Amino acid sequence: MTGAAFSPAGDENCAVYLPYTRKTQFFETDAMGIIHHSNYIRWFEEGRVEFMQRMGFDYARAHDLGIDLAVTGIECQYRAMTRFGETVIVWTRIKEFSPARMTVGYRVTDSVTNELRALGESGHCYISAKTGRPVSLKKALPELYALFLSKKAEMDARQ
Amino acid sequence: MTGAAFSPAGDENCAVYLPYTRKTQFFETDAMGIIHHSNYIRWFEEGRVEFMQRMGFDYARAHDLGIDLAVTGIECQYRAMTRFGETVIVWTRIKEFSPARMTVGYRVTDSVTNELRALGESGHCYISAKTGRPVSLKKALPELYALFLSKKAEMDARQ
Amino acid sequence: MTGAAFSPAGDENCAVYLPYTRKTQFFETDAMGIIHHSNYIRWFEEGRVEFMQRMGFDYARAHDLGIDLAVTGIECQYRAMTRFGETVIVWTRIKEFSPARMTVGYRVTDSVTNELRALGESGHCYISAKTGRPVSLKKALPELYALFLSKKAEMDARQ
Amino acid sequence: MTGAAFSPAGDENCAVYLPYTRKTQFFETDAMGIIHHSNYIRWFEEGRVEFMQRMGFDYARAHDLGIDLAVTGIECQYRAMTRFGETVIVWTRIKEFSPARMTVGYRVTDSVTNELRALGESGHCYISAKTGRPVSLKKALPELYALFLSKKAEMDARQ
Repeated sequence: MTGAAFSPAGDENCAVYLPYTRKTQFFETDAMGIIHHSNYIRWFEEGRVEFMQRMGFDYARAHDLGIDLAVTGIECQYRAMTRFGETVIVWTRIKEFSPARMTVGYRVTDSVTNELRALGESGHCYISAKTGRPVSLKKALPELYALFLSKKAEMDARQ
Repeated sequence: MTGAAFSPAGDENCAVYLPYTRKTQFFETDAMGIIHHSNYIRWFEEGRVEFMQRMGFDYARAHDLGIDLAVTGIECQYRAMTRFGETVIVWTRIKEFSPARMTVGYRVTDSVTNELRALGESGHCYISAKTGRPVSLKKALPELYALFLSKKAEMDARQ
Repeated sequence: MTGAAFSPAGDENCAVYLPYTRKTQFFETDAMGIIHHSNYIRWFEEGRVEFMQRMGFDYARAHDLGIDLAVTGIECQYRAMTRFGETVIVWTRIKEFSPARMTVGYRVTDSVTNELRALGESGHCYISAKTGRPVSLKKALPELYALFLSKKAEMDARQ
Repeated sequence: MTGAAFSPAGDENCAVYLPYTRKTQFFETDAMGIIHHSNYIRWFEEGRVEFMQRMGFDYARAHDLGIDLAVTGIECQYRAMTRFGETVIVWTRIKEFSPARMTVGYRVTDSVTNELRALGESGHCYISAKTGRPVSLKKALPELYALFLSKKAEMDARQ
């Protein structure tokens, strides 16, 4: 429950992450007076969605084209509590990427103090809405596949 | 995304878990037509709450006495999709337990087919509502500490 | 914020409602230490879903057959706060019903004290998943239409 | 389910509302492929919170000072469906205001087409965290009371 400062000089290079700023909401609090832990999982999704939007291929567009990023795994370590009224930054990066799978990494920090609130990871495969089965993104949506690949390379190069 | 049958003869002995049956709800679905992955994290909490109730010490009672089970980490692996109209069983067990920390394990199965939908884990410490800081459960709520200890021993013995 | 007892002798005959019992959950609380008001809207949906299930036609079945009950309006008056650990009863009834529209009424009471916590209403039309447009339930799903009609008559007769 | 354009020349003067722009999220969708109706109730809260922030008195500050805006009633009429990928504007105004009560009005429009998606209202009283009972805002937080009063007058004058 103790937070460690998040900085470019820290254990992870923040330049490899894309920041997404987000106010906390009252309906996200719980009776402990803090943001309920389940909301971070939703913030991760907001981070992914923002990542794709800035990359130039909206998640909504992929969904409308019949391809969804199904979640195969979620992990979150909570380092410090977040309270209503605070604004967080969700830092998102692609950790691993292949035609069949993707791993996305997240760091949540306080926008004012830079305190690390949580870090996490989500695993994904690509699902065809038509068949409900996993597909190769390279074959199903080559444009999106190429974008992810080049975006990952570009961000990794900053390391 | 392929599900494996969950049975006493499987890789984990279901006798060490406490079952909690729960209908899925329409508001838990997403545009993929399945239950959104973030809800499983909430089902885990429902499983913990049910576990404590059957153990004889409601989570609400601990909360009213000023002690909360803060979440320090969450992990979930999704094995098969769950759809609206299905009923799931959340199987809950205490994996690790000490005066300062607790790890709870979960398996989510379909109530009809026994298909394994997800498995996960949550890490906890005990927080005093008064100070907002972690406390020893053994000192803060000795009755609850003793109950967790004996319940864990009782369920582990079934292995 | 003051609650009035809910009883058959009260201003509304409880025999015209179908009861659905439901534990409150910790993730439904907010920083005021009570159940967040938005959850009652979801409880209303749970009540509708339960109503249809007991009537013999699951909402999930209607959804799978391509007909959804779109919500055209929601109203909720909060009479008393609900706390984590309490169990509520959602009482559901059909107030108005036609081939094109339906109004469902709700009362939420505490399962122990019978205190009235909230009362509300939801308006619905029937949407075809295929066209995304409103349809006549009488034409689209005559079996469900007939069931609603007879269930409403049966419950109204208890008044 | 048909939407009407929202404009200053419409049935309501948009100058009396404060706009708050907000992207829809994937986790807010349901199996109908649209934003689940319960989320609008949460968007209304986001609108209120934004309103207070721009007014110069954060809701979080009121909460920390022991005063919450309890919700006594909610009403929402859904005029057109909202889909993932769309951005909405929540227009918020104070409709009625007294030391004991407040009514807030909302209009939700699409940020691109201006189509009216929903309109609603929430009723509030002021609750002391200490006693859990309604209080006079004029006495409990005179600074906030004065701000609401002058903000309402300022916005009403634009009519």
